[in-house]
Amino acid sequence: MQSKLISFKTEFKEFISNLQDEICSSLEAVDGKEKFKEELWTREEGGGGRTRVLAFGNVLEKAGVNISYVEGSLPDSMLNYLKVSHRQFFATGISLVLHPINPFAPTVHANYRYFELYDSDKNLVDQWFGGGSDLTPCYLFDEDAIHFHLTQKKVCDQLNVSYYSKFKTACDEYFRNHHRNEGRGIGGTFFDYLRPNLETGSDHWYQFVTKMGSAFLESYIPILKKRMNQKFTEKNKHWQEIRRGRYVEFNLIHDKGTLFGLKTNGRIESILMSLPSIVRWEYNFEPEENTEEYRLTQILKNPREWV
Amino acid sequence: MQSKLISFKTEFKEFISNLQDEICSSLEAVDGKEKFKEELWTREEGGGGRTRVLAFGNVLEKAGVNISYVEGSLPDSMLNYLKVSHRQFFATGISLVLHPINPFAPTVHANYRYFELYDSDKNLVDQWFGGGSDLTPCYLFDEDAIHFHLTQKKVCDQLNVSYYSKFKTACDEYFRNHHRNEGRGIGGTFFDYLRPNLETGSDHWYQFVTKMGSAFLESYIPILKKRMNQKFTEKNKHWQEIRRGRYVEFNLIHDKGTLFGLKTNGRIESILMSLPSIVRWEYNFEPEENTEEYRLTQILKNPREWV
Repeated sequence: MQSKLISFKTEFKEFISNLQDEICSSLEAVDGKEKFKEELWTREEGGGGRTRVLAFGNVLEKAGVNISYVEGSLPDSMLNYLKVSHRQFFATGISLVLHPINPFAPTVHANYRYFELYDSDKNLVDQWFGGGSDLTPCYLFDEDAIHFHLTQKKVCDQLNVSYYSKFKTACDEYFRNHHRNEGRGIGGTFFDYLRPNLETGSDHWYQFVTKMGSAFLESYIPILKKRMNQKFTEKNKHWQEIRRGRYVEFNLIHDKGTLFGLKTNGRIESILMSLPSIVRWEYNFEPEENTEEYRLTQILKNPREWV
Repeated sequence: MQSKLISFKTEFKEFISNLQDEICSSLEAVDGKEKFKEELWTREEGGGGRTRVLAFGNVLEKAGVNISYVEGSLPDSMLNYLKVSHRQFFATGISLVLHPINPFAPTVHANYRYFELYDSDKNLVDQWFGGGSDLTPCYLFDEDAIHFHLTQKKVCDQLNVSYYSKFKTACDEYFRNHHRNEGRGIGGTFFDYLRPNLETGSDHWYQFVTKMGSAFLESYIPILKKRMNQKFTEKNKHWQEIRRGRYVEFNLIHDKGTLFGLKTNGRIESILMSLPSIVRWEYNFEPEENTEEYRLTQILKNPREWV
């Protein structure tokens, strides 16, 4: 039986490859000191990737921008996890995490990915897109949060005015340190299992995800430029290191992307490039009331509407 | 039906309470600067604990020594995880992690715990002891590893000459960063589900676990004293921070104690007091060949016999 689905494998791989180039060039221009170091790697079971990391620059403490494609046979644990029955898969995506030096400049994460499943005759039998982007400030400037959300909302609205609200809520639910009952940051968008259907047509989600990816720089670079030279103290840096501990907690305890990577024998250093360089845990550390640090922790308890 | 098992609830709670006092006093004496700060806490669903943390002392960067007792009803996920069918439980234990300042002084972890299960008539229907202690050096001194293992072996041998080897192997298997195919450290002992049986008699494992707990200071303090004033460089400290990243990875990705705490609504700050203060992740960091740092990474790949 011929599959009726149209594969986006080639187009999407090309899209993320170009997007990686574009994002890395822009970040190098903003940083002004360090360049990305690139590594090409292959995965024994099939696939590989291109990892680019910039560390200890002028502006960026650690920036990782990775593209990868993996293919092969899903282990049992992943069949259950993805709730699918076919084992042969292909997955590709771009994933980035940027940790700026300046504590007033927020950390940002973005990921855009595409997944295919095949039957035993190698017919394409399932496909979906996923991804999103979320912002994690240590100090919250409302105008930055609004800009970040608004940029993504504008792209969502181009396709369907109901999307932003749905994907914004999903983001708040997903990027949450449940064990601390607090958000990782102030959200953005998150979406998964976006499958083509009769209503949307075959390339609707491809259009959506590539538009979202293309808007990433616009959503983040103006914020970075506004904050990267703001004066800060040792105390601000200390608070940033504490908050980075929360980032690590989310990524290692809750993040499904990390889990997927570890379970499918991904490249460890590429998976964990999302972790910040310098991190601090202090027992029972609580910011004083009526400070900017305290205000952030209060807002992270209950997600807010930003636009 | 009257249960035939003898509860060790009272004796063991008293034992760990005294052990906590003894360990904290000894550590304060060695540190010479900072004292433990104590917090008593209660858990909504039943139970509580006494957490003691010493941070940024002369010798200890972060030391957490916690006792706790929790009781209540196990969630479904924990029934599956513990492979038991009774829901009503009581658990108590002492748990400690010591991170010294000096990179030549190893981090150490120890935990001794006791678990009871009850039927719907509140009869004691199951009980077991668990625990162990393992050493995590950043720089490996063979004599320290030998002392640490030998102290524990001597206690094991008092009860049964087969125990050390069994529990040493279990420790190497458990404290492993599988995603990196490397041990967290150079091991020690690890044991769990030690249930009384006709052969051992009712208090055999109580004797064993309390003897092991009582030998903790002897296993570690001489090592700490030997290394705490050794001269070190910035490079040694940098390597320590990198290795502490691996410690965090194990605790947040693999450690069942952390998982149990998070799933049973434990006190987050007490669970995560095991995390080091200052931690570093650097993409693709590899020590140069033929260095002490490299030697450690090679030994961690394949567990070694120390005694």
